Amino acid sequence: MDKHTYKTRLKVVRAGIARLKADCLIATEPANVTYLTGFTGDDSWVVILPRAVALVTDSRYTEQAAAQCRFCRIVERKEAIVKAIAELLRNRRGIKTAVVEKSISLANFQSLKKNLSCRLKTAEGIVESARRKKDRAEVAAVRAAAKIAARAFGCVLRQVKPGLTENELAGIVDFEIRKAGGTNSFATIVAFGPNASRPHHQPTSRKLRKNDNVLIDFGVRLDGYCCDLTRCFSVGTPRRIYTGVYAVVKQAQAAAIRMVKAGVETSQVDTTAKEIIKKADLPVYGHGTGHGLGLEVHELPAISGKAKGKLQAGDVITIEPAVYIPRRLGVRIEDDCLVTNDGCVVLTANCPKD
Amino acid sequence: MDKHTYKTRLKVVRAGIARLKADCLIATEPANVTYLTGFTGDDSWVVILPRAVALVTDSRYTEQAAAQCRFCRIVERKEAIVKAIAELLRNRRGIKTAVVEKSISLANFQSLKKNLSCRLKTAEGIVESARRKKDRAEVAAVRAAAKIAARAFGCVLRQVKPGLTENELAGIVDFEIRKAGGTNSFATIVAFGPNASRPHHQPTSRKLRKNDNVLIDFGVRLDGYCCDLTRCFSVGTPRRIYTGVYAVVKQAQAAAIRMVKAGVETSQVDTTAKEIIKKADLPVYGHGTGHGLGLEVHELPAISGKAKGKLQAGDVITIEPAVYIPRRLGVRIEDDCLVTNDGCVVLTANCPKD
Repeated sequence: MDKHTYKTRLKVVRAGIARLKADCLIATEPANVTYLTGFTGDDSWVVILPRAVALVTDSRYTEQAAAQCRFCRIVERKEAIVKAIAELLRNRRGIKTAVVEKSISLANFQSLKKNLSCRLKTAEGIVESARRKKDRAEVAAVRAAAKIAARAFGCVLRQVKPGLTENELAGIVDFEIRKAGGTNSFATIVAFGPNASRPHHQPTSRKLRKNDNVLIDFGVRLDGYCCDLTRCFSVGTPRRIYTGVYAVVKQAQAAAIRMVKAGVETSQVDTTAKEIIKKADLPVYGHGTGHGLGLEVHELPAISGKAKGKLQAGDVITIEPAVYIPRRLGVRIEDDCLVTNDGCVVLTANCPKD
Repeated sequence: MDKHTYKTRLKVVRAGIARLKADCLIATEPANVTYLTGFTGDDSWVVILPRAVALVTDSRYTEQAAAQCRFCRIVERKEAIVKAIAELLRNRRGIKTAVVEKSISLANFQSLKKNLSCRLKTAEGIVESARRKKDRAEVAAVRAAAKIAARAFGCVLRQVKPGLTENELAGIVDFEIRKAGGTNSFATIVAFGPNASRPHHQPTSRKLRKNDNVLIDFGVRLDGYCCDLTRCFSVGTPRRIYTGVYAVVKQAQAAAIRMVKAGVETSQVDTTAKEIIKKADLPVYGHGTGHGLGLEVHELPAISGKAKGKLQAGDVITIEPAVYIPRRLGVRIEDDCLVTNDGCVVLTANCPKD
């Protein structure tokens, strides 16, 4: 990302800090640190000051941070991170109140409170809500990740055959992603037959049988940004129940995607998909119909029955209705959509689902 | 793990709860949840009651939990996890004080405090310290993971050749691990040439050149348990400086491993390795010389200069001294050791380092 991008991000975040009547923000969530500095390592926090940004890291990451963070100061700490932050802020002119993210652990919060020489407030969502609105470069990154995912899925379709294990098929997906320069955005899910009824099944040594159905839920991370998609298919001749269920899930997904548009209640998107499943007399899935994604594979907004709020232009979200029948089958179809003022653009459209 | 194993673990943890004068523990750390129940999914907490254990999960995991957790009650929540926990403990006879782990997020802690009908204390390390002492099955799991790692490294040695990228070599490692039924215990590090001076370098599209040196730091997770090892080697004829540095790091590692024994100060192990690097007039690495590993790839005890405490029989730790010369080279050698009363057993000995 260029200098202008970080400037824009910092402007939004500093406005959030000002609204809280505070003078600086201590961001501890790894994805927020990446968003504000470009740094992708662990165990590092960022301090947003009125006129400066400081990344507090340790010697394992100093060289990496120097290469990744061109627009902030890098502080190599020798002590506990909380103490290094307190030292950085000690007696700094104009810093009377700091805000820390509420996702901080209780242990770190207590230690920070003890060590800081200024007042400490807490808040949530300052950076997360700024992250919702994806700019052109961010959308391009998700799209590029989706392109690699489509290629990896093509490989699966060419190589899949009875006798392969779930582990091996997951290995094929992951290897393709690696070769293309991406990494997994989460642990690849490959489920054969009835295993697909577990939404978060982890691959096993179960072998693919003739006429088995397959569920693959996987994602690629490229330049920090994630895509997340699920495809289901049958090897050989699908059972009639499978074909029927698949058609209903596909219909539910299409209806939900048609609903997506800036200004629409997120819960309405969820309801639209679930009602189609219900009308077909199939069990309604317990999870939400989707979630935002970007630097994290799960971020704002949540697309569920309980979620409040509306879709915004610039949101990138998944739409993933499903049908699970324990010990029998599972079908989930998942695509990633960019929300616009007129509707949405499906970013994973180049990955076939028929 | 069998019923007896969980019984033993619960006994230790309940003794910890009693020492805090509390009646139950709310464990929120994923690895602690796994340790106490066998469950390996996300977003689930466990409540250790005087005479029962309850896993609070959601519909995505109900089927998986039923298969994995044979010795505890499974509660499928429909609401926020904090509310489900509060409901579970509401007006329960004999529960006057609950303890929650201090690694809980501040947001969840505040919400828990608001919702709970009983008193709430915080503590850290109750389960983590119980996890230090690995039993026979746990050591066997780390050893089995290490066996897969050695095989994957053998594959690397056979397939490595100039022209391959760091990404591709990482892909080869990961694919071998998958095929053997394991997963990565962390994102595989492959660094060619000067990239190896960044301890946590992430693979890139840099190609391997003739006479390049290679660093691979990777781990396997099998049945929940991790191994973690690093190997360095040269393709073609190594430069003289590389051979010299490698010999020093190897000597430092051997000396540190010779120090390992129940009762020895962990900081002494760190100092032993670092002094050898220093005496050779090479830059001393900024990280610790090792860390515990088990259900997590980083757990107790820390082996660093600042760490207090002694090694205990049953600890499984890494020993990983290094030399980093920015923009020139990096060498790290890492093995996993089981601490015993007489010394230690190297669990990764079948992976060559010459």
